[in-house]
Amino acid sequence: MLELLREHVCFGGIQRFYRHASREIGLPTRCSVFVPEMAATTPVPALFYLTGLTCTEETFMIKAGAQRVAVALGMALITADTSSRGANVVGETDAWDFGFGAGFYVDAIESPWNAHYRMCSYMQELRELVINELPINASQTGIVGHSLGGHGALILALRNPQLFKSVSAIAPIAAPTQCPWGKEAFAGYLCADQASWQQYDASALMASMRTLFPSGILLDQGLSDQFLFVRLLPELFEEACQKAAQPLMIRRHIGYDHAHYFISTVVEDHIRFHRRAFDRASG
Amino acid sequence: MLELLREHVCFGGIQRFYRHASREIGLPTRCSVFVPEMAATTPVPALFYLTGLTCTEETFMIKAGAQRVAVALGMALITADTSSRGANVVGETDAWDFGFGAGFYVDAIESPWNAHYRMCSYMQELRELVINELPINASQTGIVGHSLGGHGALILALRNPQLFKSVSAIAPIAAPTQCPWGKEAFAGYLCADQASWQQYDASALMASMRTLFPSGILLDQGLSDQFLFVRLLPELFEEACQKAAQPLMIRRHIGYDHAHYFISTVVEDHIRFHRRAFDRASG
Repeated sequence: MLELLREHVCFGGIQRFYRHASREIGLPTRCSVFVPEMAATTPVPALFYLTGLTCTEETFMIKAGAQRVAVALGMALITADTSSRGANVVGETDAWDFGFGAGFYVDAIESPWNAHYRMCSYMQELRELVINELPINASQTGIVGHSLGGHGALILALRNPQLFKSVSAIAPIAAPTQCPWGKEAFAGYLCADQASWQQYDASALMASMRTLFPSGILLDQGLSDQFLFVRLLPELFEEACQKAAQPLMIRRHIGYDHAHYFISTVVEDHIRFHRRAFDRASG
Repeated sequence: MLELLREHVCFGGIQRFYRHASREIGLPTRCSVFVPEMAATTPVPALFYLTGLTCTEETFMIKAGAQRVAVALGMALITADTSSRGANVVGETDAWDFGFGAGFYVDAIESPWNAHYRMCSYMQELRELVINELPINASQTGIVGHSLGGHGALILALRNPQLFKSVSAIAPIAAPTQCPWGKEAFAGYLCADQASWQQYDASALMASMRTLFPSGILLDQGLSDQFLFVRLLPELFEEACQKAAQPLMIRRHIGYDHAHYFISTVVEDHIRFHRRAFDRASG
């Protein structure tokens, strides 16, 4: 059950922050939901936003300016944290890109991570929870994310196309088994089980599929992104989409880097992209 | 001279962060400038934004989503810090609302604050500096701020109408000599010199004037703001404006609180307000 921690009126809608006991994570967990009307009762489409390394459930809500667009299009926005918090695993705060704030949206296999680091299953639990408790249209939920969250959005949608009807990503870690961030995280959370690694790699998953999202996937990438060449690797995802005959709109932006200023710039296009996908599917 | 620390492309413009040696503060100081074009050379109107307690030169730039509007209207945005940093005054970090991050936009009289806590004169120094070094139209500069920064914007404009051609405020501390925040800060920075207190109180200043800004002052206030009744006191500023025959558009918003979600919601109206004031003055 969602316990309301605080709320703020924003662009005529309401920005709410919740805590709840997570079945999958086994700990109290936080999330945030923006609903476009102050007294929302009619179910609206919803976009799940997965955030990047070190961020929390508030980062996107306070920085991206997305609520303005969500109000205009009548959509809810939902964010989660980037890892379990309070697991107290030895070493979980040693690195900024592994452990605390860096759950990588996998269900860990390796002990002791496997007890609480289960962000992949958690996102599905969160989706069920908000659909049950809030005015959200279960048949119109999409997913988007930035960086680590872009990776999370892609793998969650590819693994669960029946749950997430549309997917897009901003500067995602598009082939984690081929980059240092992903290799280190997967080695830590998933041990040497290479088969499980592939199940959390968007490019590897896509290579074994065929046209999962007929109306396409939107991917935005800044060309001055400091992580582009070694860590993000959108070209591997692009190649996999071509093989899978999966339409991909990849937009490469001159001058833009990995910062939140890039997210703010393109977020409106992403929200509109998902709204159009929902309208097309139901129309 | 402005030393560039970092920059990010944002909505087709450039968000830059600078350091410079401040004459008034006597220490290295940071500021941030957004210019609406990537290769800006033609002078554009500029809006100075003064931020609230504890915030830095980045807070508004990363949270408010203002760059989108600034690009649409062809305006620059400029932010400063909320105090000198690095003064190492004993006790400056003891409280969140006095000292570090809480300069109150005064020039301190009381030792040891008077050496570096000089945000009032600093804002004028910063204005000169950016006009000299960046493509900014000196005859079209306005000022706005939130909370403590709203107080700063009002007093700076009322004291220097020749410099700031338009002024607006979001949930400002509108009568600091009548509220706990202002009384404590002024007692600390300005000692018992009550005459100087009045020079930093927007409502007191306004009461001794007559129609300084003929096209009006815009003030937005949330009615669920936790600081409204004891600390912000917009009604005292409203009263002073009436006495001074100063047009004031005060908008009271049901449900909105003091958080950044309120700033994001109304910032577009403020930027448009200043743009119209510039156009009217030059047209």
